[in-house]
Amino acid sequence: MEDVPTVRVCVSPALIPTYSIEQSTVVVIDILRATTSICVAFDYGVSEMIPVETIEECKTFKEQGFLGAAERNGHKIEGFDFGNSPYSYMRDDIRGKKVAITTTNGTQAIHAAASAKEIVIGSFANLTVLTQYLKQTAQDVVLLCAGWKLKMNLEDTIFAGALAEALLPEFEPIEDAVTVARMLYREANRNKKFYLQHSTHYHKLMKMKLQQDVKYCLRQDTHPVLPVLRNGVLINLHA
Amino acid sequence: MEDVPTVRVCVSPALIPTYSIEQSTVVVIDILRATTSICVAFDYGVSEMIPVETIEECKTFKEQGFLGAAERNGHKIEGFDFGNSPYSYMRDDIRGKKVAITTTNGTQAIHAAASAKEIVIGSFANLTVLTQYLKQTAQDVVLLCAGWKLKMNLEDTIFAGALAEALLPEFEPIEDAVTVARMLYREANRNKKFYLQHSTHYHKLMKMKLQQDVKYCLRQDTHPVLPVLRNGVLINLHA
Repeated sequence: MEDVPTVRVCVSPALIPTYSIEQSTVVVIDILRATTSICVAFDYGVSEMIPVETIEECKTFKEQGFLGAAERNGHKIEGFDFGNSPYSYMRDDIRGKKVAITTTNGTQAIHAAASAKEIVIGSFANLTVLTQYLKQTAQDVVLLCAGWKLKMNLEDTIFAGALAEALLPEFEPIEDAVTVARMLYREANRNKKFYLQHSTHYHKLMKMKLQQDVKYCLRQDTHPVLPVLRNGVLINLHA
Repeated sequence: MEDVPTVRVCVSPALIPTYSIEQSTVVVIDILRATTSICVAFDYGVSEMIPVETIEECKTFKEQGFLGAAERNGHKIEGFDFGNSPYSYMRDDIRGKKVAITTTNGTQAIHAAASAKEIVIGSFANLTVLTQYLKQTAQDVVLLCAGWKLKMNLEDTIFAGALAEALLPEFEPIEDAVTVARMLYREANRNKKFYLQHSTHYHKLMKMKLQQDVKYCLRQDTHPVLPVLRNGVLINLHA
């Protein structure tokens, strides 16, 4: 009998040290908005994106000719080309360009997963392409929710549930967090407005008049790309 | 208008550093089985319980005349008076005795919350008494799930959801984790066997022939006690 690969869910980057990820593919999830925006950027043709932890590093890359994306607490940092809005990447002039990106939660999660065998970017925007890739590679998978400042959040966990469901039965779900994520996803499906009503991040973005961003981030398969990290650089495998 | 106290849920002791707990009451939750067993012990009359992190420390207390409770990975450590079974405390000869206790997850969670304003022990066994106490003191509350080796688990999160629901509307639920816990609790209520089927910890205990323990730990209000930590020592406020 062949080994069935496993799927696990990690609800916060702070819990990554409790997972052995060296032999696993880690899917980094930051639905509102980093991983969604990364998918948009690649679909609009950027050649690579370098996730960096600090605004300073991002500035250094920008000085070297990169485009710069910097966001903290939902706001674009002045002097950069992009904040964290998926719409900001919908420009034809970014084709072939390189982007350095730092965000409140998403890029920190990528760094937390540094020791993984492979890091892939996940969002509703690339759900089906991502699912196909994970099934094809058939590695053990850890779905890493970026959360909000290291706390678990609803939208990332719900997406982890959606992806876990899509991976069954080819993958074996293990540990309780995957059950939690699948249940939340089913509940969100039963009541579509549920996570809009209950997500604290959603309410933060609403106050900032970003309802269009939120809506866009919840749409499925809008950008069939496959951003993976290679030597610290995100590239699109599904070009 | 008076300030409404808040209720938050922390799904793993590893996430406690992301919560400010200095002005909060932390409820430590380890349903299978530590916090349930602690409630049983107090109801059978132990005068105090000292939670310690290591088996060595526990041994030292035992040498000083304490009774000793030591468990790792579900098993009682040889040479101690108790493991982690609620049934092991159902003895009349423990009345007035002092117990030192160390368990895989529960006592570690108590130590993780050391900087809290107050630490209280929560389980289905003392749910109503605990709810009354929290409402009466009206402090901000953090429901800390011990989980399994720092990972979130189903039964502790479900209990956190039950307690959060019981605290409403006198408390304001904040952050997404409390929504997650409340949803899981409602789902568990819809389908009573749900968390038995899905809890990995449950299956571990089943393999160890501890189904009676599990059943007992899910019964509500069996032991109306109120164990709180005072200077590193658990005492029963509801004597």
